[in-house]
Amino acid sequence: MIAKKNRIKRRIKPELPSGFREYGPREAIAKQGILDVVRRTFESFGYDPIETPAVERTEVLTGGEEDAGKIIYNVAGSREKESDTSLRFDLTVPLARFIAANPEIPKPFKRYQIGQVWRGESPQAGRYREFTQADVDIVGTSSVEADAEIVAIIYRTLKNLGVDGFRIKMSNRKILDELPAYAEFPKSKLPRVLRMLDKKDKIGTSGLRLLLRKEFNQSVSEKIEEFVTYITPVNLVVEGKDELLGVIDIASKMGVEKSKLEVDFSVVRGLGYYTGTIFEAVLTNTPEIGSIFSGGRYDNLLVPFTGQKIPAVGASLGVDRLMAAMEKLGKLSVQQTKTRVLILNLAPELQNEYSQMARELREKGINTAFYLGDDRAFQAQLAYAVKKEIPYVVIYGEEEKKKGVVAVKNMRTREQKEVPREKIIEFLLK
Amino acid sequence: MIAKKNRIKRRIKPELPSGFREYGPREAIAKQGILDVVRRTFESFGYDPIETPAVERTEVLTGGEEDAGKIIYNVAGSREKESDTSLRFDLTVPLARFIAANPEIPKPFKRYQIGQVWRGESPQAGRYREFTQADVDIVGTSSVEADAEIVAIIYRTLKNLGVDGFRIKMSNRKILDELPAYAEFPKSKLPRVLRMLDKKDKIGTSGLRLLLRKEFNQSVSEKIEEFVTYITPVNLVVEGKDELLGVIDIASKMGVEKSKLEVDFSVVRGLGYYTGTIFEAVLTNTPEIGSIFSGGRYDNLLVPFTGQKIPAVGASLGVDRLMAAMEKLGKLSVQQTKTRVLILNLAPELQNEYSQMARELREKGINTAFYLGDDRAFQAQLAYAVKKEIPYVVIYGEEEKKKGVVAVKNMRTREQKEVPREKIIEFLLK
Repeated sequence: MIAKKNRIKRRIKPELPSGFREYGPREAIAKQGILDVVRRTFESFGYDPIETPAVERTEVLTGGEEDAGKIIYNVAGSREKESDTSLRFDLTVPLARFIAANPEIPKPFKRYQIGQVWRGESPQAGRYREFTQADVDIVGTSSVEADAEIVAIIYRTLKNLGVDGFRIKMSNRKILDELPAYAEFPKSKLPRVLRMLDKKDKIGTSGLRLLLRKEFNQSVSEKIEEFVTYITPVNLVVEGKDELLGVIDIASKMGVEKSKLEVDFSVVRGLGYYTGTIFEAVLTNTPEIGSIFSGGRYDNLLVPFTGQKIPAVGASLGVDRLMAAMEKLGKLSVQQTKTRVLILNLAPELQNEYSQMARELREKGINTAFYLGDDRAFQAQLAYAVKKEIPYVVIYGEEEKKKGVVAVKNMRTREQKEVPREKIIEFLLK
Repeated sequence: MIAKKNRIKRRIKPELPSGFREYGPREAIAKQGILDVVRRTFESFGYDPIETPAVERTEVLTGGEEDAGKIIYNVAGSREKESDTSLRFDLTVPLARFIAANPEIPKPFKRYQIGQVWRGESPQAGRYREFTQADVDIVGTSSVEADAEIVAIIYRTLKNLGVDGFRIKMSNRKILDELPAYAEFPKSKLPRVLRMLDKKDKIGTSGLRLLLRKEFNQSVSEKIEEFVTYITPVNLVVEGKDELLGVIDIASKMGVEKSKLEVDFSVVRGLGYYTGTIFEAVLTNTPEIGSIFSGGRYDNLLVPFTGQKIPAVGASLGVDRLMAAMEKLGKLSVQQTKTRVLILNLAPELQNEYSQMARELREKGINTAFYLGDDRAFQAQLAYAVKKEIPYVVIYGEEEKKKGVVAVKNMRTREQKEVPREKIIEFLLK
């Protein structure tokens, strides 16, 4: 129309924002396969799902502490200037809010949640701003058996995923609280020391020693090293140590191989909310990927909402990290499609027959695509099956109809067989 | 410590931002059940998943048109003031971007995606700012068979969900483009008229008439009504009409009951990107909930990215709306838990036996919780099973151990039976 403004339209680049990624069919199928196993495992232990929104009140996420907001993404409607809502950065804080908002929920409350979380960190190599977590938590019990059950779930989940080369490194925050007294440095420096210890996996023992010597004299830094390398003396840190050994004992009674469990006092966990047992699972053959399934006990997380402690323990699986590790280990499924059969579209007048065949196959659980491309040449249809990696092609034209058969081509072996029309399901099911 | 600042901590309300909601176990279990059926159905037709991020470049979402940004949520790291990234408001625009970014992907590309979308609208009664969509699309074919297949998928999905009372209302944008000529009003007023027609379901025929009479004289407004109420004359709108009848014919060959399909020219679909076939499924017994599974053909959606048309057709299921409708119809599963068995925790020294029993049950697919509450009184443990609605309780103490039996209590009938230890699986599987 002439009246319309004569805008010159700029082409828009189909790019993602930096720090974000996406999964095509191959990766999305693999991820879905992992999540199905994870969900089944969590449910087998008696955990049920909940679903909280991606957006929370910022105050809920930061616990009212302003400096806690550094990694948070703010969210605002395009008509608002300021906003007090943000994207969640984990699934644990929303769980605490959920429990506080639903005090009547029966406890212990065993729940899992699978969902995306966002962190507004500056994107670095291999660091993403959105990732999927699968969390499993139990709220309302202080029993060490609960800590052990979470460890057993980590173990069973990885086993069910076909991952065997892993260790679960365990510690206890209460033991770490004894470190200043043991190594004789001021308590105020503990957070700084914990951050150094947290780097040990990446920088090694010698790197850690270097860091410690910059901060402390030789005696202190040797004692810190000693503390995190060997089990601390029996007469020290009784409560945390008993707990830790108790969790390990019960977890092994729950079926966790002892060889998979390891006491490691350099495990400190970045997040500040842990109060007791802490653990992280690492894959032994991909140490560069870091911990993939980690957590611990956090008895104070409801305090900001309710003023009261409610004991809780849980763990979080980094699904994308696990995928990356499984890919490196060659343990990831690599299907491009879940489609088993492509029915070629050779004659419009056979639409009824094609549909009937497709329905029969689908009802038997065989995923069946019907060719819908604009190019209807026989070779184009076959080439499509090859490109899509669909294993079987069904060929049914006027000729086959007359003979009462269906030609089935195995795209891997290139073998083609004529099968009586009524035997097609039977043939494809085997 | 004395040095610490003496902050008085305000209690934080465990509230959600307005316009957001969450699902506890009962609803989350039901939703998961729906999504499993949806996913299986989409895959049975040969569609594969992809996963795009929640956050996109704002320009991608608005197609460069500034006024398209009204309902969009901006997203910014807390250190940034301005931002050019936003939360996606549907899954169709991200699909178009994905296709443009991956031109090598084999076509027709059949994909589904299930995920959350966000709209920064002012929250009204029953209007939410976050909801889950399940989208199924086919990109790279202009064939009417593709339109028909999407209609067949809508039909099959609702059937597989056990929903039978629905109609799929169908139209074609090309037919609507003929409306100004037919009813003799200026073409520029078409968008305004379409918005009126879009309200017909809510305001009824008489409400529509009122609206039209405010804008047009009697002759025009009667012709518009005529156009949307009866099938338009054969000599008009040949292309769109042939397409529409073609889609209906093929869809019924694909197994869609004809009684479920209905031509309805008041179906206009809010979103501007449709170019041909449009359809929306409504549940006949919950008309107030509106359309739950809708879509159409959109051949121009890639133009802003590539400058070229790539034909595509698809539909989007509003999962939360469907859930609300199914709940009203009493078709929603109402389990509070997927746990089948609770093993009581009666003696710590029997931990090995409890774990062994739990493992056996879990391996047979029976979701089994182990009691972990701090209150270990027998009655407290039973009361927990009642509150959680766990159907079976396993009682195994020193006495049962001596007798080589397990007591199993059916919590619905209150019946308790002693079963030989080795028969426990068999007993619970039936």
